[in-house]
Amino acid sequence: MTRRLERAQKVATRAGIDTLVITPGADLRYLTGYAALPLERLTCLILPASGDPVLVVPALEKPAAVASGIGFEIATWDETDDPFDLAARLVGTAATIGVDDHMWVSRAFALKNALPAANQVLAGPVVQELRIRKDQAEVDALREAGTAIDRVHRQVAQWLRPGRTEREVGADIARAIIDEGHETVDFVIVGSGPNGASPHHELSDRVIEAGDPVVVDIGGTMPSGYCSDSTRNYLAGGQAPAEYEKAYAVLAEAQAAQRAYARPGVTAESIDRVGRDIIAAAGYGEKFVHRTGHGIGQETHEEPYIVEGSKLVLEEGMAFSIEPGIYLEGLYGARIEDIVVCTTDGIECFNNTPRELFRVDA
Amino acid sequence: MTRRLERAQKVATRAGIDTLVITPGADLRYLTGYAALPLERLTCLILPASGDPVLVVPALEKPAAVASGIGFEIATWDETDDPFDLAARLVGTAATIGVDDHMWVSRAFALKNALPAANQVLAGPVVQELRIRKDQAEVDALREAGTAIDRVHRQVAQWLRPGRTEREVGADIARAIIDEGHETVDFVIVGSGPNGASPHHELSDRVIEAGDPVVVDIGGTMPSGYCSDSTRNYLAGGQAPAEYEKAYAVLAEAQAAQRAYARPGVTAESIDRVGRDIIAAAGYGEKFVHRTGHGIGQETHEEPYIVEGSKLVLEEGMAFSIEPGIYLEGLYGARIEDIVVCTTDGIECFNNTPRELFRVDA
Repeated sequence: MTRRLERAQKVATRAGIDTLVITPGADLRYLTGYAALPLERLTCLILPASGDPVLVVPALEKPAAVASGIGFEIATWDETDDPFDLAARLVGTAATIGVDDHMWVSRAFALKNALPAANQVLAGPVVQELRIRKDQAEVDALREAGTAIDRVHRQVAQWLRPGRTEREVGADIARAIIDEGHETVDFVIVGSGPNGASPHHELSDRVIEAGDPVVVDIGGTMPSGYCSDSTRNYLAGGQAPAEYEKAYAVLAEAQAAQRAYARPGVTAESIDRVGRDIIAAAGYGEKFVHRTGHGIGQETHEEPYIVEGSKLVLEEGMAFSIEPGIYLEGLYGARIEDIVVCTTDGIECFNNTPRELFRVDA
Repeated sequence: MTRRLERAQKVATRAGIDTLVITPGADLRYLTGYAALPLERLTCLILPASGDPVLVVPALEKPAAVASGIGFEIATWDETDDPFDLAARLVGTAATIGVDDHMWVSRAFALKNALPAANQVLAGPVVQELRIRKDQAEVDALREAGTAIDRVHRQVAQWLRPGRTEREVGADIARAIIDEGHETVDFVIVGSGPNGASPHHELSDRVIEAGDPVVVDIGGTMPSGYCSDSTRNYLAGGQAPAEYEKAYAVLAEAQAAQRAYARPGVTAESIDRVGRDIIAAAGYGEKFVHRTGHGIGQETHEEPYIVEGSKLVLEEGMAFSIEPGIYLEGLYGARIEDIVVCTTDGIECFNNTPRELFRVDA
């Protein structure tokens, strides 16, 4: 059994959970290395708090599970078997089952049906307790992902030209995300002019014009399974609106202050507060419409969230984004985003391209 | 309100469900046209069996929801609000809530917490009742997807050369899936020689050799949201093993018999049986290790499943794959797959490239 499985057993025991049932997704991949697809046939890890794990897989997925390096028992079911009967037999008499937070509710119901006496609680807190603190290999993988997305940002200026659409620029960026070493493209946001004012705008057929501020927020997943995510701001020739230049300076100051402040021992909400205070003092408090950041690892968004109200105290190994933004509806938006990890006494920043507005010669 | 929402209300009423709660995924997209990403912030459609729908979205996703064409009320929540309080207020006094089959169990628990008196049942049967019968626009979209993936299969021979790896061939195919009109690549299986014996093998660094049978199973999602999925078999020069040629002839006969048999009025399991009997009679019964097929629409795998034990009687508008396979472990595999839809009295087949083993001149 691997160290991660053993640690999950210890945390489950402390949480009063007898058996964890984990379906495909980031938790399964983290615990077992098996990146199973979220298909309709049941695959799940059954991990008792004490005892040996078993991976339940449809028979036709067994070769894929074996190829992923599963080193413990694999129990298969055939096309006409009921996989929940099999899972129930393997779970046995557990009184409290910790179900994967992202398990489909239809599966939780089927499991309840097969094991009516067992109490279901969420497994998420157990696995998050492990995943929230990155070990050295994970920190290295996140650094590698950060370096890869930085290489993409360094090329954006050559594609961002007035007269091209966001979608055209986005297609070039998507290709580069793969070419620079990612396995998948997770998102490509090219928010030009007013589209930049919608934080989660992706791509449109809007033609970029000289003088448009453009938010470029991009990320992918590396072969290691770890994700990248970085936002920079570009101006495709021309002159930015004067108010934008002013807002951008405030944003850059806030983001720099947050990076200078973040370290082990401070709360998640206090990092948010440091940036929000600077932005609010400049009169843009209402325009910073989202939290400061999210944890990152094998998922782009995971714990810890850097948000008002979170009393979580940061520790070494916690990795997250620092990405304040200012959004002026109908006009433009700006966001500066870096991924950082807490070191023993500060942070290491994984994104290191210049944070100033990048003025493309067009 | 749209026709689909109205029909969902009627089916929900018949099923004794007071309110449907649908989270991001194919059901939400089908009912509202909104292809929301499955992110950690709660988005959900609240559709009472009688009354007006409301879409709950995080404030920063509202522009995306509006852009997708939502024509009914959108209720937003801010970063520090509890979205389940909002959802609970909107659900109100419903006694029975139909929750999206793919809702994360953590959300179902949070909803239960916010509405402890309401009974949760699965919404899946209600939405499947609609989605399982494709209307004309959906049939047209699936035909367009089938034509697009056929154009890719017609080019595979130029990439499939002895000396290249599965991964190299797969990269060429992935590019073509996009170039031929898909928005995303959903899967690329290039199973050469023994890798073809694992039905869900994807890509590896195995070098393809002359005489290797190669299973190529590919699909993507079109801008319409509808999916393609077709499998053909190739031989990259050389001579196929004699036993393979024999098995392939059996497989082709079985798949042709299933296409000739499928029509409205027959059961899903009977289509499976027609192919399985032919394969079993030739001595390969144990080697056909999976069901005959799966429904397809906005998901690659959805109802109806063409599987032993399913008494579902096919109707006009039901679309699914017919894809028997024969797998000889350690040697090779073969699978022939077409997407078809039931017409008034037979089927229309959306994949129409030749089904014989394609012998590449290498």
